[in-house]
Amino acid sequence: MFTSFSIFAVVIVGLGVFTHYYLQRAPDMPKLDLNRWWGDGNRPNQEDVTIRPFKIVFNETMIDDLKMRLRNRRPYTRPLEGMQSEYGMNTIYLEKLLKYWQDEYDFKGRADLLNRYPHYKTRVQGLDIHYMRVKPEAKGKQVLPILLMHGWPSSSKEFDQVIPMLTTPRNGYDFIFEVIAVDLPGFGFSEGTNKPGLDPLQIGILMKNLMKRLGFDKFYIQAGDWGSQAATHMCTVFPDDILGFHTNMPVSIRRISNMKTLFGSLFPSLAVEDKYRHRMYPLSDTFSYLMREGGYFHLQATKPDTIGAALTDTPAGMAAYIFEKIAMASNKNQLDTPHGGLESIALDDLLDTATILWANERITTSMRLYAEAFAPSEIFIVHEIPTKVPTAAIKFLHEIVYQPDWILRDKFTNLVHSTTLDVGGHFAGMHTPRELADDVFESVVEFIKFHEKYDK
Amino acid sequence: MFTSFSIFAVVIVGLGVFTHYYLQRAPDMPKLDLNRWWGDGNRPNQEDVTIRPFKIVFNETMIDDLKMRLRNRRPYTRPLEGMQSEYGMNTIYLEKLLKYWQDEYDFKGRADLLNRYPHYKTRVQGLDIHYMRVKPEAKGKQVLPILLMHGWPSSSKEFDQVIPMLTTPRNGYDFIFEVIAVDLPGFGFSEGTNKPGLDPLQIGILMKNLMKRLGFDKFYIQAGDWGSQAATHMCTVFPDDILGFHTNMPVSIRRISNMKTLFGSLFPSLAVEDKYRHRMYPLSDTFSYLMREGGYFHLQATKPDTIGAALTDTPAGMAAYIFEKIAMASNKNQLDTPHGGLESIALDDLLDTATILWANERITTSMRLYAEAFAPSEIFIVHEIPTKVPTAAIKFLHEIVYQPDWILRDKFTNLVHSTTLDVGGHFAGMHTPRELADDVFESVVEFIKFHEKYDK
Repeated sequence: MFTSFSIFAVVIVGLGVFTHYYLQRAPDMPKLDLNRWWGDGNRPNQEDVTIRPFKIVFNETMIDDLKMRLRNRRPYTRPLEGMQSEYGMNTIYLEKLLKYWQDEYDFKGRADLLNRYPHYKTRVQGLDIHYMRVKPEAKGKQVLPILLMHGWPSSSKEFDQVIPMLTTPRNGYDFIFEVIAVDLPGFGFSEGTNKPGLDPLQIGILMKNLMKRLGFDKFYIQAGDWGSQAATHMCTVFPDDILGFHTNMPVSIRRISNMKTLFGSLFPSLAVEDKYRHRMYPLSDTFSYLMREGGYFHLQATKPDTIGAALTDTPAGMAAYIFEKIAMASNKNQLDTPHGGLESIALDDLLDTATILWANERITTSMRLYAEAFAPSEIFIVHEIPTKVPTAAIKFLHEIVYQPDWILRDKFTNLVHSTTLDVGGHFAGMHTPRELADDVFESVVEFIKFHEKYDK
Repeated sequence: MFTSFSIFAVVIVGLGVFTHYYLQRAPDMPKLDLNRWWGDGNRPNQEDVTIRPFKIVFNETMIDDLKMRLRNRRPYTRPLEGMQSEYGMNTIYLEKLLKYWQDEYDFKGRADLLNRYPHYKTRVQGLDIHYMRVKPEAKGKQVLPILLMHGWPSSSKEFDQVIPMLTTPRNGYDFIFEVIAVDLPGFGFSEGTNKPGLDPLQIGILMKNLMKRLGFDKFYIQAGDWGSQAATHMCTVFPDDILGFHTNMPVSIRRISNMKTLFGSLFPSLAVEDKYRHRMYPLSDTFSYLMREGGYFHLQATKPDTIGAALTDTPAGMAAYIFEKIAMASNKNQLDTPHGGLESIALDDLLDTATILWANERITTSMRLYAEAFAPSEIFIVHEIPTKVPTAAIKFLHEIVYQPDWILRDKFTNLVHSTTLDVGGHFAGMHTPRELADDVFESVVEFIKFHEKYDK
């Protein structure tokens, strides 16, 4: 018995030493092409670097066609007796949403609402990128540029409630933000590439080039989902140019972090505060949740063109598919209700997202990002390199993954601010814009302090 | 060094003893309701047990609507530069298939072709079940009843080339078959249930009741894919009534078989003949293949109603989705071609399958089977119980899984015939009807010998 324990102790200590010295070691930064061409064909001799004002238009032809398709939809198979969302989207509930989209959603009014901000497009590395650029009502405050980056299946629209909260002066803060809310390539109104390889690392490089085009050499970032992955790579590749990174999906996928997560499952009380333990352990709960909810991820990471071809042809089907995933990332306690969690977001906001995806035919190009993220490339080296960029993590209650700060620090060595909330979900800009904006202000105070302390 | 080896040997032997005595042990058969009601509401006092002749009709309204939808299809996102099927269905190739479906596929002629066999429907346990029943040109031969069971996304149509090969007399054989080719509930022209729980075990019970309705107390079975799973359960639950089981997807998923597969990866030369080793090992290749190709399985096992809602509304999308999977199960060496393996099946046969699924709106009901197969039920106990039914395994080259006979015998203790071919794929009735029919005749000779030897 004693011997068994000794062997166990030796193994644990040995593994500890191994993980510390071997897995903590960061690889060298690979050589990256910082100006890869993602447009059709080859790079032209003269690149178009103009910045063009843009207005969102949902045109009559698109609207009529969309409504025709919704009207001509074939009847759905009803849910199995006694089931809500256990087998996926509840088709009775879905019908209500589709009827609203068809008969009541105000296409023009919603476009006008988005057009209250100034929109632009400019070509970066061959792709026409759309963004909103909103200058603040400054009045004697320091203006700080901040790039907002969304994830799937969103667009910059996800931030429309957050933007005014960042551009309006606040008591107690001597700074204010100029917001650049961008659509990732292949999402929203931004062009997708026709070349393989545009993974989150490459998107990060492209975003850095966009900000340079707009005249920002150094700036802050707020991001979630794939936007947060791309931003994490920006922080790793351009550590001197990102002034601070605020993420609502903080995650380190370094090998050492995975190892710590596994070891933590043996001693959860050492790994994570008691009150947040259920967000992480038992791992079996997390795996069950990811297994139950991760089919879309598996499919998009392997066959995006197939599911893309299917969803390109049916607005009702596309809505069912994306709404089911928005629902699951909104409220883990409501998975087995008819709406699956969807009712924590206003229906008009959901339909803005669906309409933008549909009108721009971005379903295939946006889903391809999952496949690119797992294709062999330098990204797997960059994942392992920590970043010194001061970082703030906000952890909402229903976020898909949870990591405690000591694991996040494997990647973000200067995690200067961390907030854990008992509300909110994955689409923070839509669920809890106020909490998100408040935390950005608080975090930037810490970022500024960090630079005052450590910069020469 | 010697000590390490000794420890290793002790561990291996110990695990061997453990697996033999613990994992080989079969649980008791659970108590099963052999007449569960799958129809809407409650069982009526008087059940309809009539057998009604049926004809396949692709009606004008359906055809016009289908063609309208194909014509109005939105343009596809083209494949990424240099890619064939690496990101899923090649949309340029797909367009050709869809154009053929829209302009050249002969709906009436294809229905007539299927109607050359006598079709019937009858209600079993509340569900209207469709089947073909084809009596042979007997002339002094013994007539043996055989039930043919297909899988996803097929129907009894999969067997239309095999049927005449089984019902035509052969030199050297003094028996011939009467064929019952059935559509599984929720597939083809068979009604789906509106109640949860209709898993492969329950389908097996329903099929047994169908055969009883048709007057067959004892019969043979040929099956693949989910049909083979259902048939395996029939063999386990009704061992005295199944005279012999011929399967083209032979698989034991008993725990001991999984254990043997794992151990075999340490000593592959002991686990599997050299010439077939690459069909099984290295396991990493198998896992990569299943990971790359298994997204649809993951999604259908967790969210069938979501993907069902999407594919119900677009014939083009439904075709893309099912054709990609038919392709992958057809030829593993052609995964990265534009057709992905699809060209090993005639286009008209593929479109029969698509048209039947579409016309009957069976996409959701058929995909739900994946979810039911993993829902908690007695099925996990029945999986662990071996069957004494004499069994024949035919292993085609591109079948999704491969198990050597010594593993198959964990489940099928009387594996009396085994054939491994260097041709063919998962949809044997469509790829290689001749090889399939030949092997059925050869196997039934062995089944008869088995009964002569062991039955009183």
